[in-house]
Amino acid sequence: MSQQSRQLRLGAIIQGPSGNMSAWRHPDAVADASINVEFVQQLARKAEQGRFDFLFIADGLYITPQSIPHFLNRFEPITLLSALALVTRHIGLVGTLSTSYSEPFTVARQFASLDHLSGGRAGWNVVTTPLEGTAKNFSRAKHTEHDERYRVASEYLQVTKGLWDSWEADAFTRDKASGQYFDPTKLHTLNHQGHYYQVQGPLNVGRTPQGRPIVFQAGASDAGKALAAEAADAIYTRQETPEQAKAFRDDVHQRLIAQGRSPDELLVFQGTSVIIGDSEADAEQRYQATAQLVTLEKALEYLGRYFEHHDFSQYDPDAPFPDIGNLGENSFRSTTDAIKHKARAGNLTLRQVALEEATPRPSFLGTAEQVADGLAHWFLSGATDGFIVRGGTPTAFDDFVDQVIPLLQARGLYRREYEATTLRENLGLPEPENQFAAKAQRVA
Amino acid sequence: MSQQSRQLRLGAIIQGPSGNMSAWRHPDAVADASINVEFVQQLARKAEQGRFDFLFIADGLYITPQSIPHFLNRFEPITLLSALALVTRHIGLVGTLSTSYSEPFTVARQFASLDHLSGGRAGWNVVTTPLEGTAKNFSRAKHTEHDERYRVASEYLQVTKGLWDSWEADAFTRDKASGQYFDPTKLHTLNHQGHYYQVQGPLNVGRTPQGRPIVFQAGASDAGKALAAEAADAIYTRQETPEQAKAFRDDVHQRLIAQGRSPDELLVFQGTSVIIGDSEADAEQRYQATAQLVTLEKALEYLGRYFEHHDFSQYDPDAPFPDIGNLGENSFRSTTDAIKHKARAGNLTLRQVALEEATPRPSFLGTAEQVADGLAHWFLSGATDGFIVRGGTPTAFDDFVDQVIPLLQARGLYRREYEATTLRENLGLPEPENQFAAKAQRVA
Repeated sequence: MSQQSRQLRLGAIIQGPSGNMSAWRHPDAVADASINVEFVQQLARKAEQGRFDFLFIADGLYITPQSIPHFLNRFEPITLLSALALVTRHIGLVGTLSTSYSEPFTVARQFASLDHLSGGRAGWNVVTTPLEGTAKNFSRAKHTEHDERYRVASEYLQVTKGLWDSWEADAFTRDKASGQYFDPTKLHTLNHQGHYYQVQGPLNVGRTPQGRPIVFQAGASDAGKALAAEAADAIYTRQETPEQAKAFRDDVHQRLIAQGRSPDELLVFQGTSVIIGDSEADAEQRYQATAQLVTLEKALEYLGRYFEHHDFSQYDPDAPFPDIGNLGENSFRSTTDAIKHKARAGNLTLRQVALEEATPRPSFLGTAEQVADGLAHWFLSGATDGFIVRGGTPTAFDDFVDQVIPLLQARGLYRREYEATTLRENLGLPEPENQFAAKAQRVA
Repeated sequence: MSQQSRQLRLGAIIQGPSGNMSAWRHPDAVADASINVEFVQQLARKAEQGRFDFLFIADGLYITPQSIPHFLNRFEPITLLSALALVTRHIGLVGTLSTSYSEPFTVARQFASLDHLSGGRAGWNVVTTPLEGTAKNFSRAKHTEHDERYRVASEYLQVTKGLWDSWEADAFTRDKASGQYFDPTKLHTLNHQGHYYQVQGPLNVGRTPQGRPIVFQAGASDAGKALAAEAADAIYTRQETPEQAKAFRDDVHQRLIAQGRSPDELLVFQGTSVIIGDSEADAEQRYQATAQLVTLEKALEYLGRYFEHHDFSQYDPDAPFPDIGNLGENSFRSTTDAIKHKARAGNLTLRQVALEEATPRPSFLGTAEQVADGLAHWFLSGATDGFIVRGGTPTAFDDFVDQVIPLLQARGLYRREYEATTLRENLGLPEPENQFAAKAQRVA
């Protein structure tokens, strides 16, 4: 029973052709995968066949001609997840949406509606949007500063959670004989009057099948971790080693306890990529074949994206990584810090940094046994609750489902069948109480 | 050929149980239809079986306990239409979204994504939101005044159309050998700097299968008609008689010509409800059975919704319709004007006005032959290009598809099979040019 009591959790990334920014050039790649509805449906079916907990879609709201190709032309997350709701049955549908460029009433409503459409499988990955240029697409004079974005996000989540509690689960009585459609004592009007938002409510969507959609948080900064501890059900992060990951997870658990929450109310997911080969050498060869699709020019453009689209082509690529001041600190802060630290520590050239960023080695590369060993080690050592998996080559995700999942199942680490119908139940997360109903009970 | 050259167009309303505000109480009604995913899929299948051009979903962003029951808890349009995209094949997917409480980048993107997901079947019904209380759900001090809302909407549509033209249809070359993902001469950055909006672009979705989603406009005021003539592909309106409808359509055609557009670039749709019986008496009995579900109390609440939720229960229901000043003029102006005019002209009591509004007689009520005659008369006399149909009882829509559609087909007025795969082609609307590509061609 102890094996069954803690099960590995897995999410699958949907994001164009799997691999690096140039993976679309791979002979096996569907080059237009980011906007190809057949591709996305096939990936969803494969992930459901692999009993994945959820599909996960990242997002962005600003592109330039230098952006990663599959960011230029891709499905919008809410529409894509909704489209998948009626052609999948079990898998969770998690999408990124920014609190910095949206309205809480609209977002609460769209995710609630998705939860109803999917029978309780909706998840929202809360981000505050790193890219400064986004302001230019939303009639804003400037992009809000990093820490304030998280203060906005915190209030935003209070509002959305309040709206999701507008109706108790049994509010709609719909008694044809008496004409009573709902019980007015089970309707709660939010009347939020905050610093950033004033939202009256109620929401025009009833309480959702899983109480409310699952909330992911995806920023590894201090402000990001604080927001997660306060309001999230799951974190999407990325650490280099199991030791770093364990320290991260322990830190999050401490923060949860400080907030009066239990550590098992929040799951930590490591973003990871995988390549499976018939041998370790075969896997390495697959990695190299995909890595070589990225030219230095494209790698420098990719690097520039983290630093406010800085033009790195102006430097000698074989000189040490240049001093570029604090560019990008208001955007991808944790990433830019890590890149600069790694460059200094390893005394790396610009070429080395750029290629390493644009063609990162998969966290798990080797035979199916080796990959399963690696995942099991991270999981069993307490470094993570699960992984959000992307293929390191266009075919690696299928290989993962066909070869690695059965090994994890054989070891008793992963489900053979879905336990339940909602994402919340499949993830083993507690049912949320309605804050207004709970208050009424305490008063009574 | 002349019969075939002008074909009747039909849309089907999705909006909870068909009939009036209390139709959910009908013995045949699915009481939770507004949030029931099986109900909606069945309706979509039935409409597609009837070769309808499109499904049409209205919307609202503000409710009170007095709102129409099926408005309290309903699917959000973007999510619902997206969910239907992969479980339907031919039918258009048209949804209401307000320009007053959304961002053009987000809305352009969601409808473009829906167009890709559905293979070219997306439509956007542009509204400016009548309900004043909506401001309270969106952190606004006040609801924007009627005419300014239309000035905002006009600029908003310029922005969304500009974003939809970000990429030419053949911009994405995706040449694996050379590494060229797109042709940079076919990327157009909008750089809109307007009075209400500053939006740089480009949109991160490629040109859509039908060029851009179909744009409906749904306001019958002067400002609404002007906006439609300037920017819409279709109008959703409602007139009482074929003569009034013809005058409306002629007016719109004149406005189109004044804008340098052709009358066949815009279709006028009359919103209508239907009840079909085995005899005229049977149809009348069906109407009465549904009308009797509405109590005076509910009818007065319903009436109040058009007048800023005014409390009409304070008046003697059998006295003449009270003088309530200009309440509601910033909201449902054309509706409130019509109600007051009708009350005065007919010397009606409050009870009569309230019940007539809450339980309107269907425009077409009778045998299938009589209903088909009525529709054909309006269409052939030039009063309308088509209808957006709602059932006047919970089963009336199915009756319409089973009994009236075959008659319209037999008369050569309506398709037996879909002509094409996109909504635009099925509606016979011209392919829109890309404003930037067209400009480049004129220069060259």
